[in-house]
Amino acid sequence: MKRAPSTVEPGGPPFVRRGTIVLHGGDLGAARAAFPLAPEPWLDLSTGINPVPFPLPDIAPELWQRLPDRGEQALLEAAAARAYAAGREAQVVAAPGTQALIQLLPRLRPPGRVAVLGPTYAEHAYRWQADGHAVTVVSRFEDLAAADVAVVVNPNNPDGRTISADDLMALARRLAERDGLLVVDEAFADVAPAGTSLLPRLGAGAPPTVVLRSFGKFFGLAGVRLGFAVTGDVPLADGLRQMIGPWAVSGPTLAVGTRALGDGDWQANTRFRLACDALRLDAMLAEAGLPVRGGTTLFRLVETEHAQAWFEHLGRAGILVRRFGEDHRHLRFGLPGTEAGWRRLAAALGCSP
Amino acid sequence: MKRAPSTVEPGGPPFVRRGTIVLHGGDLGAARAAFPLAPEPWLDLSTGINPVPFPLPDIAPELWQRLPDRGEQALLEAAAARAYAAGREAQVVAAPGTQALIQLLPRLRPPGRVAVLGPTYAEHAYRWQADGHAVTVVSRFEDLAAADVAVVVNPNNPDGRTISADDLMALARRLAERDGLLVVDEAFADVAPAGTSLLPRLGAGAPPTVVLRSFGKFFGLAGVRLGFAVTGDVPLADGLRQMIGPWAVSGPTLAVGTRALGDGDWQANTRFRLACDALRLDAMLAEAGLPVRGGTTLFRLVETEHAQAWFEHLGRAGILVRRFGEDHRHLRFGLPGTEAGWRRLAAALGCSP
Repeated sequence: MKRAPSTVEPGGPPFVRRGTIVLHGGDLGAARAAFPLAPEPWLDLSTGINPVPFPLPDIAPELWQRLPDRGEQALLEAAAARAYAAGREAQVVAAPGTQALIQLLPRLRPPGRVAVLGPTYAEHAYRWQADGHAVTVVSRFEDLAAADVAVVVNPNNPDGRTISADDLMALARRLAERDGLLVVDEAFADVAPAGTSLLPRLGAGAPPTVVLRSFGKFFGLAGVRLGFAVTGDVPLADGLRQMIGPWAVSGPTLAVGTRALGDGDWQANTRFRLACDALRLDAMLAEAGLPVRGGTTLFRLVETEHAQAWFEHLGRAGILVRRFGEDHRHLRFGLPGTEAGWRRLAAALGCSP
Repeated sequence: MKRAPSTVEPGGPPFVRRGTIVLHGGDLGAARAAFPLAPEPWLDLSTGINPVPFPLPDIAPELWQRLPDRGEQALLEAAAARAYAAGREAQVVAAPGTQALIQLLPRLRPPGRVAVLGPTYAEHAYRWQADGHAVTVVSRFEDLAAADVAVVVNPNNPDGRTISADDLMALARRLAERDGLLVVDEAFADVAPAGTSLLPRLGAGAPPTVVLRSFGKFFGLAGVRLGFAVTGDVPLADGLRQMIGPWAVSGPTLAVGTRALGDGDWQANTRFRLACDALRLDAMLAEAGLPVRGGTTLFRLVETEHAQAWFEHLGRAGILVRRFGEDHRHLRFGLPGTEAGWRRLAAALGCSP
């Protein structure tokens, strides 16, 4: 670490969106404005998106031209059910990104008490609160059961903490006794240890639970906007479908999603490659004196007193990492996707070549 | 007309979606199930989508891979403002399809009295009602002013009726006196006579009005899912942006939309070609004894006592047109996109070669 931490101006650095409480990664336009002298192209490590994407198939022109067909959406949802090993009677509902589902879920229920296991992805608490629910962010899993709705990100973002499917099912049953609902965001479950995902347990007779799955992160295609809600609860699935409305997912996205979710070989190879790359990143961060506190194989969470100074040092080198408004000692690093990217990160971290 | 009208089984023909009140065009999968012996490929004339689309530009792989950038969305919205000649201070808000906006608008206001000028596209009344508003469908423009929210589709779908921008501005001012809102759906305004669109009038100081524009119909790219809300009312635009949330429009769609909206030559040539094609369709329909009652240059509305029999005759020939649950005497015909399509329609209509 060559530079002392710089002072942050009041109101936050220029690319924090003012007037909102949620900071997101992945906005290179704002990063360019904040670090105008940084070399191009930027190396964006701020998002936890697989940088080696599923190869785009040819897309028939008609998929761009006509409205998406209900049959095509049903095929996609069936492919998702198989890829995610969802229980046989699970309802799979496609949406234009998990973000859209996070925004819709608070409207499924009258205002009530919502407990979010945190710290975690901030959009959950933000959207429940914006829709009039009383939201508490709790740090202990045991404190979720007292709420009407419990929200768990599993594996958690950014620290990678996992809760077992057994513990989650027990929580769902306790919530169900009081007509409650369990929401599990499995955005990074594609790379979680076996037994983490709740989806094989879902189906008819399961206590009310909604599991969210993101397509774009693991498949490296975040631009397509695709996510799924999976539940064993038919009225809940119907309520979501009604709110999402017709033709919500674009035609090209339906085609790409169906192909990628059906390619088990690519998925298995990718899980292995991501595990190797995460080890490589850990070694680099260790050499730079940046201790890894957790993560998944799509991102690693670093804890350091010098987080802001590292953020700025990397930003001036054209490397964008994720920082967190609520905890100034943490930085999240995604994986470089090319050898040139790895070398650039190594150089910026001061690692031996 | 060679066949007598057939009987429709109770509950409607098989491809009417049961349990919903809205019928849509464009679902070829359902049409195939209803007419399993029809020749492939189907000629889909059910949608009013331009069958000669804007040519797809090359799309950089990164637009599929990373999350869309706020700057890219701002570029798209600026291109839309120019293409639509929106007033200088108009707020343009992009969404993944106009349908998404139709579903969000009823949430901007507490439940109230909503008047829809009808008959028209059924989703408007359906979505306001579903969100707890008291909805009346009125047939006279003058009856809109008594409501809290007035909804006008202009040009109207399916009959092509237009209301002048002057009359709409007068209505908006009357509604504004009682804190009301005017919603104008300009889904087909790209092909409307000059002076129809309200967008040049919008900007700071305009009475509360939201205008919806569809991208996919005129540009022939309905699969991309893109629509816009335009308003001079900043808090209203902010409310919509908040409900739409981040990354709602896919990366490839942002790129295609920005390019197409910026291509004024293509737009002018397309308006001319559509006008010619609509004349050609009118001539064919006249020869078949099917009187055209209205429409735009993207579709023509036919009125006949034998609408159901014609629907089935065309369906057996693999040609899908649009019928209407509320009026069994109407059929809507879109334009064929190829000479082969025109010949096939002519043959099915019994026109001279």
